[in-house]
Amino acid sequence: MKIGFIGLGHMGAGMAGSLIRAGHEVTVYNRTRDKVRPLVALGAKPGNTVADACTGEVVFTMLADDAAVDGVVSESNGVLGSLARGAIHISSSTISVALSESLSQRHAGAGQGFVSAPVFGRPDVAASGKLFVVSAGPKQERERVSALLEAIGQKVFTVSDRAPDANLVKLSGNFLITSVIEALGEALALIGKGGIDRAQYMEILTSTLFGAPIYQTYGKLLVERRFAPAGFAAPLGQKDIRLVLAAAETLGVPLPIASLVRDRFLRLISQGGEGLDWSAIGELAARDAGLTPPGVDAGVG
Amino acid sequence: MKIGFIGLGHMGAGMAGSLIRAGHEVTVYNRTRDKVRPLVALGAKPGNTVADACTGEVVFTMLADDAAVDGVVSESNGVLGSLARGAIHISSSTISVALSESLSQRHAGAGQGFVSAPVFGRPDVAASGKLFVVSAGPKQERERVSALLEAIGQKVFTVSDRAPDANLVKLSGNFLITSVIEALGEALALIGKGGIDRAQYMEILTSTLFGAPIYQTYGKLLVERRFAPAGFAAPLGQKDIRLVLAAAETLGVPLPIASLVRDRFLRLISQGGEGLDWSAIGELAARDAGLTPPGVDAGVG
Amino acid sequence: MKIGFIGLGHMGAGMAGSLIRAGHEVTVYNRTRDKVRPLVALGAKPGNTVADACTGEVVFTMLADDAAVDGVVSESNGVLGSLARGAIHISSSTISVALSESLSQRHAGAGQGFVSAPVFGRPDVAASGKLFVVSAGPKQERERVSALLEAIGQKVFTVSDRAPDANLVKLSGNFLITSVIEALGEALALIGKGGIDRAQYMEILTSTLFGAPIYQTYGKLLVERRFAPAGFAAPLGQKDIRLVLAAAETLGVPLPIASLVRDRFLRLISQGGEGLDWSAIGELAARDAGLTPPGVDAGVG
Amino acid sequence: MKIGFIGLGHMGAGMAGSLIRAGHEVTVYNRTRDKVRPLVALGAKPGNTVADACTGEVVFTMLADDAAVDGVVSESNGVLGSLARGAIHISSSTISVALSESLSQRHAGAGQGFVSAPVFGRPDVAASGKLFVVSAGPKQERERVSALLEAIGQKVFTVSDRAPDANLVKLSGNFLITSVIEALGEALALIGKGGIDRAQYMEILTSTLFGAPIYQTYGKLLVERRFAPAGFAAPLGQKDIRLVLAAAETLGVPLPIASLVRDRFLRLISQGGEGLDWSAIGELAARDAGLTPPGVDAGVG
Repeated sequence: MKIGFIGLGHMGAGMAGSLIRAGHEVTVYNRTRDKVRPLVALGAKPGNTVADACTGEVVFTMLADDAAVDGVVSESNGVLGSLARGAIHISSSTISVALSESLSQRHAGAGQGFVSAPVFGRPDVAASGKLFVVSAGPKQERERVSALLEAIGQKVFTVSDRAPDANLVKLSGNFLITSVIEALGEALALIGKGGIDRAQYMEILTSTLFGAPIYQTYGKLLVERRFAPAGFAAPLGQKDIRLVLAAAETLGVPLPIASLVRDRFLRLISQGGEGLDWSAIGELAARDAGLTPPGVDAGVG
Repeated sequence: MKIGFIGLGHMGAGMAGSLIRAGHEVTVYNRTRDKVRPLVALGAKPGNTVADACTGEVVFTMLADDAAVDGVVSESNGVLGSLARGAIHISSSTISVALSESLSQRHAGAGQGFVSAPVFGRPDVAASGKLFVVSAGPKQERERVSALLEAIGQKVFTVSDRAPDANLVKLSGNFLITSVIEALGEALALIGKGGIDRAQYMEILTSTLFGAPIYQTYGKLLVERRFAPAGFAAPLGQKDIRLVLAAAETLGVPLPIASLVRDRFLRLISQGGEGLDWSAIGELAARDAGLTPPGVDAGVG
Repeated sequence: MKIGFIGLGHMGAGMAGSLIRAGHEVTVYNRTRDKVRPLVALGAKPGNTVADACTGEVVFTMLADDAAVDGVVSESNGVLGSLARGAIHISSSTISVALSESLSQRHAGAGQGFVSAPVFGRPDVAASGKLFVVSAGPKQERERVSALLEAIGQKVFTVSDRAPDANLVKLSGNFLITSVIEALGEALALIGKGGIDRAQYMEILTSTLFGAPIYQTYGKLLVERRFAPAGFAAPLGQKDIRLVLAAAETLGVPLPIASLVRDRFLRLISQGGEGLDWSAIGELAARDAGLTPPGVDAGVG
Repeated sequence: MKIGFIGLGHMGAGMAGSLIRAGHEVTVYNRTRDKVRPLVALGAKPGNTVADACTGEVVFTMLADDAAVDGVVSESNGVLGSLARGAIHISSSTISVALSESLSQRHAGAGQGFVSAPVFGRPDVAASGKLFVVSAGPKQERERVSALLEAIGQKVFTVSDRAPDANLVKLSGNFLITSVIEALGEALALIGKGGIDRAQYMEILTSTLFGAPIYQTYGKLLVERRFAPAGFAAPLGQKDIRLVLAAAETLGVPLPIASLVRDRFLRLISQGGEGLDWSAIGELAARDAGLTPPGVDAGVG
């Protein structure tokens, strides 16, 4: 298929690469131009404008936040103005349920399609085409793009015919990840202050009931207190919790653990941890227990 | 080995059975006598008193709570009074760190050994000898009983030379299980009120980052709202959270999620859910979201 | 002075009345016209449009929320377009810090003044001119309108030269009120379930260390469970907590009690309490304790 | 009346002084003997043993905690063993509901009376006889000691015929005080980080809706960050929250603000604030907001 790809950050670059490798004709666009080059080396066509990426049947967007996505969609000569009738916008960014709803309606109003397809996985997973893709949107549109979604992920999960549902699933998933970080942080503070070896403790957990990738990945980061460089920076985690709380407020659902995690992010960032990985919120329980020697972990206060 | 086993409830009966099958000579004792019979059928010797179970090299206790364990240990002709010098008491009950500490000292004072060996797993797992065993105590004593611990579990994890450490690991593990129940309950309330299919959502979670037994087991219970009959009753969960908070208070460690879960248990039980499985605390988020039709789930208020 | 007043709800009507009684020439405007009549009877000039209320030296706005205030300010022939250079907009609504900041800048850009003057007090207090007024804005502008602020309140507190500071003070004050409601709700659930007379308990509190209007007012509402009719409806309380949390997020300040109160409002409203007074969140602790007989207080779930 | 007084700490010394000044014949006892002297100077008779203080019609105890009270009551030649049949033990210490219940029963079993009479007020208030006294116990016994209670307080509140009810009221009152400290701490962090003057803000609060002694006292301590020397030390506050949570657990009442405050105390003490006033928990919100310069307030981490 002839497609476009907008947003070549850590995640987007890997996804666009997978699409190229799968044989699609991909025009790539990124606001800062130098990120285009490695993709062109793989066979992509360079786009100079957002509109250049919107000349095919499908355009992907993979951008940092609501403002960035809404920007490229709504600006003059943006996605909405450039995409042909009948063409489809696939949004893979982690955006708000409300923006996803708005994009659905505006694209439909313009005779265009909209599929929401956020992904789970870190940059290395994106690069190897092994992401998990959560997809929602009108059936016909989802089917038209299914080969594309399969190209970027190891597995594609279909949620429903309403595009914003995929965003709610993605946001709730990120909330669950933070709940694991926080709970592990508390448990490690407890047993750590009790004098028990933290690495051995994580080994027990992941060898028994908690043998999931999420516990392995974050348990290791927490045990080693390896919060820099950030794989996924704290302010992005804070943003996702803000979005999940906003969606929950609209739906009328109290989420006490999400509120706790929100406060952890605010504190981490206010105390200087802006540049750390989001898993650094899991160190705050140890700090509250008087465990961490000040200075040892600058930035986790 | 010639050993005794005190406490033949759902868990203890399975464990004692495993020991018999492993070829040990086991004298079993239970306050209510009729539970002795099935074990005798397997080859156990029936004990009429606590002291009868304390005539061998080792005696296991597997009882409901601190009061029960302290009772059989401290009463006249109890474990402490009956066990020979050099014999070992293995405590597998989920008891407080403080009681474990006290038992350690009192047994040592009487020239007896004490090994703490709490277990992870439900009754069916106990029956099949597939428990996970967390063990702590003086090295020499642990080594003397290692064959016994391997008989009851699929894997034995050694924590340290201090017996109460195993109890802290066990309690913190139960805390982590409740953190999963609560977080899943919140996420399911959110996506459920958003109109997304709950079973399909759990399928996505467990097929991706959350593929651990703990998410599979409790996700299923929550999606099906199957809280009765109780596999592990709410008051037992409440007790474990009380013990973990008590240990954390002694160590000076704030555990905000544990406090939240404590309040969930108090509410569940005050609103009539005393007889439900502990996973029923995960339904309260849905109730707060106005989701659950009153009457459908009597007892989850 | 020749002034205008936009927004004649429960609060605005009382404030406009006070200004008329103080001898000012007041043009009043309200979207639904029938609310104008009682003020005209007091001597006000009726305005047919927002612009009609903007022909004097000063115009007050007292409206429900950010959207309403931003609407009358920004619409064509709105406050911004109609007010003369050098004239002053006094905003008394409980609005967000962010909107107050934006209004400050936009009015300054148009050569107009902006003073933020939110108030504490219920409608009866507004009617008697006994409000507490919290004022902020450039010194010169505040001084020009000081007689007006004194006309509506028993006392005017000046916060700073930055208009949004008054909004932050107002929002934090409403947060503190909700903290009192929640804490009293918890204490009353505790002693009430303990069999102690709730009215007598409140009498002890307010006769000793807690002898403030806030404890007297809300203690009485909680003891009598008198949540309807609403003096200040739950959705308005929810809005204020949303605004205080938004301001706190911008500033990077975790507010755990505010998060708890937010969840109380979401639950109250999701369980059918939308029409109740905001103090009804204080009944939820009793409900969690299994105290309130279902049906007795329909809408507090 | 001929009475005894056991426990001459900051509070007890003032209370015993009031009783002497009211003309009663008071035998005073304190474990460390030097505290007896100032009271003897006022006219007290020195007691060498607990039993010496138990020879009259009534004996007061005013001690640090459950262990101390239970100790002097239960030890050989303690209050229980020494008090005459028909004589009355007045317990003014802040003790658990459970101990109060136990003392009620044990004194009744010994044919003695038991009145619970905890007090509100700091040491200076005790010295001037201006405490608030909360009293509960059998009517006849309360009436017999009413003149004594009036001698130590400016006002005596009678709760019920069940002695432990006074303890529940006292503990819930201390919980409410901590809720004020925490809420004020959060509000001050918010407006303080917003650049608003903290002292002026407290002035606004206490001049309007929050004009209660509790806001004046603790607002001042928080604004001035004056946490040492401790008027009421953090570990005592922690103890009271532990007792209120224990009573709430027995009654089945979730108290989320109390759980939050519990965590604040654990953190404060684990981070080195053991010697500070309990109001120092109100500084933690500012710390979480990144406000407090490290080192400025050593001990509030």
